[in-house]
Amino acid sequence: MIDTLAVVGATGAVGRIILDLLATRKFPAKRIKLLASARSAGRPVRLGDAMVDVEALGPDSFNGVDLAIGSTPDEVAAEFVPWAVERGTVVVDESAFYRMNPDVPLVIPEVNLEAIATHRGIIASPNCSTTQMVMVMKPLHDAARVRRVVVSTYQAVSGAGLAATRELEHGTASWLAKQAEEKQVFPHPIAANLIPQIGSPRPNGFTSEEMKMVLETRKILGDESIAVSATCVRVPVANGHSESILIETENKLTAAEARRLLAGFPGIVVEDDLAAKHYPQPRTASGRDEVFVGRIREDISSPNGIALWCVSDNVRKGAATNAVQIAEHLAKHGLQGAGRAART
Amino acid sequence: MIDTLAVVGATGAVGRIILDLLATRKFPAKRIKLLASARSAGRPVRLGDAMVDVEALGPDSFNGVDLAIGSTPDEVAAEFVPWAVERGTVVVDESAFYRMNPDVPLVIPEVNLEAIATHRGIIASPNCSTTQMVMVMKPLHDAARVRRVVVSTYQAVSGAGLAATRELEHGTASWLAKQAEEKQVFPHPIAANLIPQIGSPRPNGFTSEEMKMVLETRKILGDESIAVSATCVRVPVANGHSESILIETENKLTAAEARRLLAGFPGIVVEDDLAAKHYPQPRTASGRDEVFVGRIREDISSPNGIALWCVSDNVRKGAATNAVQIAEHLAKHGLQGAGRAART
Repeated sequence: MIDTLAVVGATGAVGRIILDLLATRKFPAKRIKLLASARSAGRPVRLGDAMVDVEALGPDSFNGVDLAIGSTPDEVAAEFVPWAVERGTVVVDESAFYRMNPDVPLVIPEVNLEAIATHRGIIASPNCSTTQMVMVMKPLHDAARVRRVVVSTYQAVSGAGLAATRELEHGTASWLAKQAEEKQVFPHPIAANLIPQIGSPRPNGFTSEEMKMVLETRKILGDESIAVSATCVRVPVANGHSESILIETENKLTAAEARRLLAGFPGIVVEDDLAAKHYPQPRTASGRDEVFVGRIREDISSPNGIALWCVSDNVRKGAATNAVQIAEHLAKHGLQGAGRAART
Repeated sequence: MIDTLAVVGATGAVGRIILDLLATRKFPAKRIKLLASARSAGRPVRLGDAMVDVEALGPDSFNGVDLAIGSTPDEVAAEFVPWAVERGTVVVDESAFYRMNPDVPLVIPEVNLEAIATHRGIIASPNCSTTQMVMVMKPLHDAARVRRVVVSTYQAVSGAGLAATRELEHGTASWLAKQAEEKQVFPHPIAANLIPQIGSPRPNGFTSEEMKMVLETRKILGDESIAVSATCVRVPVANGHSESILIETENKLTAAEARRLLAGFPGIVVEDDLAAKHYPQPRTASGRDEVFVGRIREDISSPNGIALWCVSDNVRKGAATNAVQIAEHLAKHGLQGAGRAART
C-alpha cells in the first residue's frame, strides 16, 4: 500500500482506461491524484464511485506523490518526468521518450518482471504494437529461441487518441453518405481505407513505429541478436490492434507445441479453431486485458517457423493495463529500485 | 478481330467491370453475347452505349461463339467450360476451378504472355491476391531470383461479390448507430473489424486463399522452388486489395534498384515517397487498372530482402482487367492454341 498515486494525462484515451482499472482492480493507494494539461484542469472525472477534480500538471504537482503513471505525448513526458523524479516520485511512463534510455527498464510484467527492480525512478511501458507481439514471442523464445520475426500490423485508430476515434466515426458516416470527409488526425481518409504509415520516416525507409517494434523487442527480451522486420498499417477499426506474425526459431517447434506454450503463458488466450471460424478479432478483443492468439500454424516457407495471428486491446494491455500492472507491482513490493539504491 | 465473344457471369461484380472494359477498350469482336444464370436472364444490361439482354447460360449458348470470358463461381465454371470447349469456344476463365490443371495455362499478360499459346481451349486468370503479388515479384525475380515471399493481405470485401459490398455498407451503418448488424456473406461482423480467414481450412492450417497464393505463384513464374508464406485477412474496405510483402532474393537488390525495376515494369505504378506521405491506398487505387507499389525498402531482418506495400483494384487487375487483356491478345493474335493444335 502506498500513500499517493498520481495519474498524469488522466483525461486522455488511455488515461480513462487507467482510472477504470485503478477502480476495478482496487489499486492499493490511500489517495489518487489526477493530473492533466491546464486545458483539462478543474474538470471532474469519474474514478470508481467518486468524481475527482483534475488538477493542472506542474513541477509541484508531485510533492508528496509516491508513484505516478504517465500517459502523455512524448514531449510532455520529457518535461514532467524529471519534475517527478526530482521529488522522489517513481514514474511508470507510457510515452516513448524514455523507453530506449539504458537507465530505464522497459517492462511487460509477464515477460521481464525482474527488470522493474533495476529502476532509478523511471520504468517505461512499451509501445502497444510491441507489447502484444513480445507477449507472444516470449514463451516461444524460452522454448526454442527466436531468431527472426516478420510482422505486419493492422492497427486501430484508438492508439492515435480520442480525436482519431471521432475522425473514424465521422469519416465513416461521410463515406456512407458519399460526402467528402474532414481530416485532422490522419493525413488521408481512414474510413474504408488503409494508411501504410504510422509514425515518422526513418532514414532506412522504415517508420518510427516500425523501428519501435525492432528496438523495444530486443530490449525487453534482452537479446540484441533478434531480427525484426515490421510493416505498420492503420486500418479502419475503432479499437484493438491485430498482427500477422511469422516467428522463426533456432529449434523447431510444431504448431501443437507452440499452441501449448502460448496457452500456458499468463495473459494469453488461445482462440484457434479455423474449422469453427474461431480466431481473434478486434471487435471481440476490445475491452479485454489479454492478448488473443489464433491461426497458429507451421510456416511452409522456412524450416523452423510459426505463423500466427494476434489481437489485443491496444489501449488496455498495449498501454493502460500494462502500466497499471507495473504500478501494482511497485505498490505491493516496494518502490525502491536497485538502480537508484546503488546510486545513492 | 473475332466474330462472337461471350461474357459468362455478366451481371456479377466482376462481370460489370468486364463489360465496362470491353466498351472503353473497344474489344475487337463483331458481336458480344451476355450470359448469366436463369435468375438474371432477360434483364437488359448496359454495354457501352447499348442495352443488351442477358441470356440464360446453357450448353447451346456457345454455338457459334469464338471466345468466352467467364466470371462465375467455381462450380458454375466446372459445368459451363466443357460445354464451351466442346463447341470449339476458347475460354478465358476467372474461376479457380481450372487454374492448377496442368493442361491449362495460368496467365498474367505482363508476366507470362507466352503461356497463352500453349492452351488447349482454356486459359485461366489467377486469383486476385496472387496477381498483384506476382506482378511485383516478376521484375525482381528476373533481376535477382526470388527465393521466398512472406505476405500478409488486407483484402477488400468486393472480392466476395456485390452482396458483400452491401453487407459492409449496411454493417457500417449499424455499427455507427450502435445496432446489431445482419451477417449473410461473412461469418463475423466486417464493419470496424478484421476477419483472419478467407477461403476454407486446409490440413496444414493455411486457408484455400493462402494456398492459392503459394501454388499459383509457382505456376505463373514457372519456378516450383519459390517458397511463399501467406496470411489472408478481410478488412473493412470496399474495394482494392493491399499486401504487405517481404521478398527474399538470391542476389542482393538495393531499394533503389528494386524501385527502378518496378517503375520500369508494364502495369506497375510506383508511389513511394514516405516523407511526402505518398504511398498506395485502396481508395486511390480503386477504379484503376494498374498495380501500385510503395514503401519499398531493404529488409533489416535478412541479407537479401525487399519489403514493400502493394495495392491494386481486385475486381480490375485482380480479375476483369487481366481476363480482358488475355482475351484481347487471343482476338488479335489468333485463337488457336499450340496445345490444342498438337492434340488434333
